[in-house]
Amino acid sequence: MSAAAPAPLPPAARRFLADLFPGDAAVFSPEETCVFGTDASRRQALPAAVVRPETEDQIRELLRFAHAERLPIHCRGRGTNTVGDCVPAPSGIVISTARYADILEISEDDFVAVCRPGVVTGDLQAALAKKRLFYPPDPASVRFSTLGGNAATCAGGMRALKYGVTRDFILGIRAVLPGGEVIVTGGRTHKNVAGLDLTRLLVGSEGTLAFFSDITVKLLPLPEATATALCAHADADAALAAAGDIFRAGMLPAAMEFVDRTCLAAVAALNPLPWTQTAGAALLVRLDGSEGALAADLARLERVLAGRTPLFVQTAREKADQEALWEVRTTLNQASFRVAPDKLSDDVTVPRGAIRTAVARIQAVAARERLPILVFGHVGDGNLHVNIMHHAADPDQRGRALAAREAILDLTLALGGTLSGEHGVGLSKLPFLDRQIGPGERGLMRRIKAVFDPHGIMNPGKAY
Amino acid sequence: MSAAAPAPLPPAARRFLADLFPGDAAVFSPEETCVFGTDASRRQALPAAVVRPETEDQIRELLRFAHAERLPIHCRGRGTNTVGDCVPAPSGIVISTARYADILEISEDDFVAVCRPGVVTGDLQAALAKKRLFYPPDPASVRFSTLGGNAATCAGGMRALKYGVTRDFILGIRAVLPGGEVIVTGGRTHKNVAGLDLTRLLVGSEGTLAFFSDITVKLLPLPEATATALCAHADADAALAAAGDIFRAGMLPAAMEFVDRTCLAAVAALNPLPWTQTAGAALLVRLDGSEGALAADLARLERVLAGRTPLFVQTAREKADQEALWEVRTTLNQASFRVAPDKLSDDVTVPRGAIRTAVARIQAVAARERLPILVFGHVGDGNLHVNIMHHAADPDQRGRALAAREAILDLTLALGGTLSGEHGVGLSKLPFLDRQIGPGERGLMRRIKAVFDPHGIMNPGKAY
Repeated sequence: MSAAAPAPLPPAARRFLADLFPGDAAVFSPEETCVFGTDASRRQALPAAVVRPETEDQIRELLRFAHAERLPIHCRGRGTNTVGDCVPAPSGIVISTARYADILEISEDDFVAVCRPGVVTGDLQAALAKKRLFYPPDPASVRFSTLGGNAATCAGGMRALKYGVTRDFILGIRAVLPGGEVIVTGGRTHKNVAGLDLTRLLVGSEGTLAFFSDITVKLLPLPEATATALCAHADADAALAAAGDIFRAGMLPAAMEFVDRTCLAAVAALNPLPWTQTAGAALLVRLDGSEGALAADLARLERVLAGRTPLFVQTAREKADQEALWEVRTTLNQASFRVAPDKLSDDVTVPRGAIRTAVARIQAVAARERLPILVFGHVGDGNLHVNIMHHAADPDQRGRALAAREAILDLTLALGGTLSGEHGVGLSKLPFLDRQIGPGERGLMRRIKAVFDPHGIMNPGKAY
Repeated sequence: MSAAAPAPLPPAARRFLADLFPGDAAVFSPEETCVFGTDASRRQALPAAVVRPETEDQIRELLRFAHAERLPIHCRGRGTNTVGDCVPAPSGIVISTARYADILEISEDDFVAVCRPGVVTGDLQAALAKKRLFYPPDPASVRFSTLGGNAATCAGGMRALKYGVTRDFILGIRAVLPGGEVIVTGGRTHKNVAGLDLTRLLVGSEGTLAFFSDITVKLLPLPEATATALCAHADADAALAAAGDIFRAGMLPAAMEFVDRTCLAAVAALNPLPWTQTAGAALLVRLDGSEGALAADLARLERVLAGRTPLFVQTAREKADQEALWEVRTTLNQASFRVAPDKLSDDVTVPRGAIRTAVARIQAVAARERLPILVFGHVGDGNLHVNIMHHAADPDQRGRALAAREAILDLTLALGGTLSGEHGVGLSKLPFLDRQIGPGERGLMRRIKAVFDPHGIMNPGKAY
């Protein structure tokens, strides 16, 4: 999609920004700003300016000015958002957190870390692991995406099954409001019920309420070890039935991932699969815990899995062996682009018990629209990633892909699901939101936004 | 404390209520209403009326009328709140959920339950256990308090350490707003990031935003088994150091409870303790998991605990044996009233690493004010329950108890803590809230309340 030309920034505004952000901390030319005008949604719009603050005072001054001048503000980490949350409005000012990216504190005694929003979540996890501490949320982008972006979208990931999502690990936020006021929500205690829960209102607000200046997260002890089981089944029903058996045995794995036959075919085109028969689906299960307990749990898992007579089962405890098993899942994105050059990607989520039906109906949509649709995701959360593969340059294929997408969103809602389990609404799901959320609830959201942002400068046109 | 006389209900309002709630579904006489005018805070005020709806239509009609007539509305479960959240305003109307208490659905496939607010949480847990399902939040009142009340206060409990608090298990709420509009927040999917998080804004709002008509909770598979370890130490420092060792070993117990020497003395007066030496503190640890893994984890825990050479250690895996070990904690409330007839009770919470300092400072306050102060609680959450025992009828003791309370709240905040980890603010902590939460944040809370409740009829004067 081509970028809209930015509305020109008033000269006084440009001077203000250049003074507040000296040197290359502010850029204005399309050559320099265009990379900040897109995200993983592949949508694009040119911002009027990009600024890279290094201090909270700069952010306060900027939000005071933008509030007074009614200039749109877009907070941006690494631009991995898939629904257009980082795509600016014309005349919008992008705040890049690239230079506002310190881990301020890791407290081994309090089991908290305090970070600037630009910290890459994977970097935080690596720093924590050295101290045997653990921040569980693991969106697929974890090695590239930032804690600020993860907080703004309430990012999920595979480990949500056992540990919960970003929301469940954010204890407090220091935030700058439009107008420049700083608020501090929550704190560094693991429990806190004083007043309305402003912290969780900020989490998942997709940049529409405030700039997150620093973020306090809850940490857990790092589990001593992990183990993995990979099994292949004749069809999706058998794999999902096995997943149900695991829950019924009272087990709560750290992750449980499903990949359908279209995924397996795509992956097999890159690397041979570890089984010879034609499998209709695979299940990947990760357990964690202390060494001794894990051995017992893994043996139990093997007994449970055997009950559905899978085509193939393999378990691993060594790190390298585990990673080899996970390749069925980790090479998926790369493999998908061998299927077709373009994808429409969604993270629809249904009640856990409706997954089998959802997978079957999505596969029926794929057959009807004659497009390969990769279906994989987090079984325990009912969270299915759906990649509708097509050639966007072919109008007929593009039309069928869009029709498939709409059918998948509708079937998700018909099953009591949600348009988004972890990516957010952004721009790309906004046209569909009325099908899920009523006017009363959306009215409340807009009026709450007005409490924080009366002039509507924060990421306008997104989310709700 | 004596009850204030209720403001008389206007005759038209009384007729309206009597028509909407026929028979004994509405009561007006002080004899019948007085029991609904108090809660576990021991504060009291007479409501003008108590109604017991059986349908949502009645609640909608009531909230439409109360909104138009500016009549205070107080939602009430079983009145176990300890901070006065259930104590009505003069001329207030209490909505009792006693007849609005059905478990509407338990879905073994979706891992959700849908309940009316009046369901007693312990009853829900018992019904779930029969299906090997698990709703973890376990406030001390769990056998008496309701899911609606637990949601309104974001109740915690011992298992919060591993599983999180009520907030982390509420997926969606159907709520009636002042004016009678019904909103539906969230849903029944385990992940959901569509729009602002209205669900968690309602959780913990202490009855100030809306009436919760039904509540959808997330369920886990019931762990196969639990095990308990009880150990006694020479002093609080040693016990708390042992707690730190458990975390450093990478273990995340289902519960980890601390009781101080004053608690042990109180309990010993009821039943002999299982050790002979004079212990300064005890630690109770509960593990859960599958049978095989639990055996390994328990052995590991024993090795970790041995590292601090405790005065006494005992472990148990049979249910009855575990309960016997837990008596040190479960008989505390009963034992406390042998120490003195009255208590000021708080649930202060500090960052995890500050617990040792907090316990020492609270014990210093006890010495200074010459009052027995029981200190116990959830070590992993930094959540300390503090019972200041005294004779309220003795003005000197009462004065010292109040001084001790204020000192404890202040030392908590000085350590970066919060006034409330799980009880809420209600009436009794409201005078102190300004010490924790700034005017900017409280202003936001009040303006958000006005979005839901423009005339301020929902539990006025509480929480923030």
